[in-house]
Amino acid sequence: MAMYDVMIVGAGPAGLSAAVNCRVRNKSTVVVSRKFESPSLSKAPLIENYLGVDAMSGRELYQRLLEHARRSGAEFLEANVTGIYDMGDSYAALTSAGDVSAVAVILATGTVQSASIPGESDKVGMGVSYCATCDGPLYKGKRVVVVGFSPHAVEEANFLSEICSEVTYVPASRGGSDVSHLKPAVNLAKGSVKAILGDMAVSGVELDSGIVETDGVFVIRESVPAERLVEGITVKDGAIEVDRDMFTGVPRVFAAGDCTGRPWQVARAVGQGQVAALSAARAVDKFKASGQADQ
Amino acid sequence: MAMYDVMIVGAGPAGLSAAVNCRVRNKSTVVVSRKFESPSLSKAPLIENYLGVDAMSGRELYQRLLEHARRSGAEFLEANVTGIYDMGDSYAALTSAGDVSAVAVILATGTVQSASIPGESDKVGMGVSYCATCDGPLYKGKRVVVVGFSPHAVEEANFLSEICSEVTYVPASRGGSDVSHLKPAVNLAKGSVKAILGDMAVSGVELDSGIVETDGVFVIRESVPAERLVEGITVKDGAIEVDRDMFTGVPRVFAAGDCTGRPWQVARAVGQGQVAALSAARAVDKFKASGQADQ
Repeated sequence: MAMYDVMIVGAGPAGLSAAVNCRVRNKSTVVVSRKFESPSLSKAPLIENYLGVDAMSGRELYQRLLEHARRSGAEFLEANVTGIYDMGDSYAALTSAGDVSAVAVILATGTVQSASIPGESDKVGMGVSYCATCDGPLYKGKRVVVVGFSPHAVEEANFLSEICSEVTYVPASRGGSDVSHLKPAVNLAKGSVKAILGDMAVSGVELDSGIVETDGVFVIRESVPAERLVEGITVKDGAIEVDRDMFTGVPRVFAAGDCTGRPWQVARAVGQGQVAALSAARAVDKFKASGQADQ
Repeated sequence: MAMYDVMIVGAGPAGLSAAVNCRVRNKSTVVVSRKFESPSLSKAPLIENYLGVDAMSGRELYQRLLEHARRSGAEFLEANVTGIYDMGDSYAALTSAGDVSAVAVILATGTVQSASIPGESDKVGMGVSYCATCDGPLYKGKRVVVVGFSPHAVEEANFLSEICSEVTYVPASRGGSDVSHLKPAVNLAKGSVKAILGDMAVSGVELDSGIVETDGVFVIRESVPAERLVEGITVKDGAIEVDRDMFTGVPRVFAAGDCTGRPWQVARAVGQGQVAALSAARAVDKFKASGQADQ
């Protein structure tokens, strides 16, 4: 498993700034992101308030930021991160491209998508999952429901239909509504999701058209809800809580950019990415020094 | 008196970013600074961690930031600010180039220089002053001591020697130690400053070589101590305390950049300047709307 000093989740302005600043501090650095593009920046026709950079489109600006980060020597991994776990001497991220480990973590995942389905947040790991590649094998020969908030949810449902006995796809928002590529083996549910049912483990999904009994639910959004990525971080009013050093309160885990709240702006994200990187670099040094002292 | 929506004190990366962002929000904006240069940036041979801008010297980078801010339509005033006072419907700044008023204030004054002489902080306005141009006339025909921490302190002493009966100059640090241009009318004190004396008002200055009786003390630093600029702001561990919106707790007064603490970095300052600007713009809108409602 690849082991780094710092793992950065997300490749928007905050994540890229964090990467450049981790490299300046000579830390081995990996940036993991589902895509190396910025959906929010790409929609901006003209950005003229990022000091020192002439007015240009968001798309052009993003390319410029990305080039800078590439030159820094950080490694880039295109993958979904579905969970980050404290292994004692490091954090291990489960990603769609394999496991990645690092001493410190910087979350730069963009605007927070919260766990929003009633019954979802208390059943994560007990039937609620966010990644078919990662957790699909657990449901071999069983029944699953895929709730699709994102265009790639259909692919997840198709993949699950190869290993599960029964797969039901629920288009849950415009992002997941294009079912033209859904395989015939997948049932297409009608109606919207009301709740995930079950006392301890998942027993079913309530739609406004009725209840679908199931052994597991895959909720596929553009990104995993921030509070599910790392245990112990606090999300309040749609933002990850951080202190002035961008520290989340979870050892060696920091956050920067839009995921820490408004205003959603490039300069703010870049500045926070820098602060998070310097804090993470310091935390790595301290952690390594204390580890050596223990030996 | 010139009246603006937002007054920004300081023209480093934080102040310039605040200016650009206030203008993007269409606020009339003035940047007041003793000089339009950055002493800390000018010492940096190479800055390579400001995302999106190629590696260049701090001097070059500063010129680039300054040009951007100039193009934004903000006004620039080269002047010392010695105090900012709440006038009810605006803040009025006393500056060496006259008074300037604004609805909101952004402090971007760089690393905080604290009131550090024993007896100094409790006698501001009762004999302790920070600007000869502003307060000199109060001491016409009287005795004053000038404590010089900065190269321009000698000029202040020379100016005071034209209106005061007796001027004593105390070189207090390397910055104020070049006395080659001191006028013959000014006494040059030997020894370093121990304390400013007096029960209510200033009565004298204690040097390690003895006591100099005086009616007033001009303490001339590179900048006025931050906690003296605006009444009510909190300075802790050498930094102005702000919340996540860069709000100081004093109505319509914000702070950004190195004056809010470490790390002292360009991207952080630029990001904070942006946040302070957007917060200030919102405060101006709200204040003006409530004013109209009251009428």
